[in-house]
Amino acid sequence: MRIPFEQMQAEFSRVFQGAGMSPERAEICARIHTETSRDGVHSHGAGRIQRFHSHLKAGFIDPLANPTLHKSFGALEVWDGNFAPGILNALHCTDRAIDLAKQNGIGLVGLHNTTHWMRGGTYGLHAAAKGCALIAWTNGDGCMPPWGGREQRLGNNPFVMALPGEKDPILLDISMSLYSYGKMTGARMAGKSLDYPGGFDQEGNLTTDPSAIETSRRPLPIGYWKGSAFAFMLDLLAAVFSDGNLTLHVDELKKDGGGCSQVFIAIDPAKLTSAAYMHELEDLAKAHIKSSAPAEGGGNIRSPGAGCIAARRDADANGVWVDDALWAEICAL
Amino acid sequence: MRIPFEQMQAEFSRVFQGAGMSPERAEICARIHTETSRDGVHSHGAGRIQRFHSHLKAGFIDPLANPTLHKSFGALEVWDGNFAPGILNALHCTDRAIDLAKQNGIGLVGLHNTTHWMRGGTYGLHAAAKGCALIAWTNGDGCMPPWGGREQRLGNNPFVMALPGEKDPILLDISMSLYSYGKMTGARMAGKSLDYPGGFDQEGNLTTDPSAIETSRRPLPIGYWKGSAFAFMLDLLAAVFSDGNLTLHVDELKKDGGGCSQVFIAIDPAKLTSAAYMHELEDLAKAHIKSSAPAEGGGNIRSPGAGCIAARRDADANGVWVDDALWAEICAL
Repeated sequence: MRIPFEQMQAEFSRVFQGAGMSPERAEICARIHTETSRDGVHSHGAGRIQRFHSHLKAGFIDPLANPTLHKSFGALEVWDGNFAPGILNALHCTDRAIDLAKQNGIGLVGLHNTTHWMRGGTYGLHAAAKGCALIAWTNGDGCMPPWGGREQRLGNNPFVMALPGEKDPILLDISMSLYSYGKMTGARMAGKSLDYPGGFDQEGNLTTDPSAIETSRRPLPIGYWKGSAFAFMLDLLAAVFSDGNLTLHVDELKKDGGGCSQVFIAIDPAKLTSAAYMHELEDLAKAHIKSSAPAEGGGNIRSPGAGCIAARRDADANGVWVDDALWAEICAL
Repeated sequence: MRIPFEQMQAEFSRVFQGAGMSPERAEICARIHTETSRDGVHSHGAGRIQRFHSHLKAGFIDPLANPTLHKSFGALEVWDGNFAPGILNALHCTDRAIDLAKQNGIGLVGLHNTTHWMRGGTYGLHAAAKGCALIAWTNGDGCMPPWGGREQRLGNNPFVMALPGEKDPILLDISMSLYSYGKMTGARMAGKSLDYPGGFDQEGNLTTDPSAIETSRRPLPIGYWKGSAFAFMLDLLAAVFSDGNLTLHVDELKKDGGGCSQVFIAIDPAKLTSAAYMHELEDLAKAHIKSSAPAEGGGNIRSPGAGCIAARRDADANGVWVDDALWAEICAL
């Protein structure tokens, strides 16, 4: 079904306030979740309301906490998230990184003891709207074996790069597994196979069967050994830069991802190049990939973030899509 | 065959001096190429001597040029590489980023109009040896189709992350295609298939046959659509942050990769966490992935950079490996 943006946001806000959040803070988190569904990332929009609500109820997330400054030097800051709502912590630290970038050209903010930031792209879009580029990532609980192993030791560790565009922002938001568990569950429920092998089954064979990977817990990193090494590095750098926890600590805490570490690097591109040249580069780069002959079957060549902008235009015109049963469950919370 | 480090470096230095480099500059480039072979990255060590030599001879690279400061603001700098040898430009800019990081905690240096930096990991190791973490990348000539297309529009755009370790540095050095052309050529010459599908053949079918991909020029990005988007983003950000060229400009210049753009972000981790905690995190993260049961067939679980350190130990003990025929060709230059 389709729900008007304001109605969806109000409903999410009501749920969050019922779990102890102030109206003002609930409103912000509800807006981000609604924007996430609006942009077509349903898994981290409407799809995360129940889990966030249960984390507030379980005390994994403190609805009243605020981040506190832990360290500061030059263009660096480290904040303690105090297990406050991950969206509020991450928005705060993105804003701090932007302030540092406006002052120094670049700013890095590490954040420890935080909770799930939901859609990583949120912070890239937030920075882009304020004229900054952003490089950001998070660690989280273990969900993927390291290359050469069969047990979950690495997080999915979403990695974000964003740049303000002339009209729409350019946004990369990728996790280190080829398919998320959410995507695999969705494929299984739709009775579909994955387009490409997405992991190993319990016998160690590559498979396109989502349920075999849900059972084995062996999703495939992007680029096999490369994504495994990248996920390791993002975890280690997140913990070092935030003076915080590794994935293994997050697992030990048993707070469903709570206690994780994040990094926000903002860069003010106006200090490096002119707006005119930046927009020229954007246009040229987009046109260049689209100038390729399409792959067999009519490939769809898209620049990063174009899919979410298309989903947004559709939602703006027709309302934000949500699964009927899920919406009823959220309304009953 | 195995060659002592000093002998190999002296030979490379002789070749570079013969193409117009000063003894001092030739010595540095020769050392980096030798270190690259020593670390097992043969394609960018001894494997690149002839091409570098021919680029000097062709005037694609100016043996006498030096980088010049183009812009500066706070913790940012942009340098014009003036088509000087890529190694010298990249070392210079890594050093500038380190200086900015020591002063501000973090520093970003963009570099335009540079030439091939050879092994990207060189600069990660260089920063780590000086106590800094590094995030760096380069664009280059088009060698890979965008996802959904069949013509080469994206560069391989190697991406580097490094952190000083307690004993050995931790180093991620990945390009955006699953296999490099060098790897595919090597597999073909050895009569081997690739372990995993490495690209599309001319009919658009995924294949493990290296020669089919060498013919189609359609190598596969890591993580399919994800690596394609990542490569796009690295290209655009490299050009914006360096006020420089995109891959499409590099292709237009027809200098075999000359004129490319690079980014060096150094971070001083001592300003964010203690050395003791950083080393504890390193030990824990490494032990954690190794604690996984191995994959079928006895998987080899390695932390990023461990392979290059193992190759280095072997070379230190037994000399640096080089292909016999290649060595003879280099000696004849």
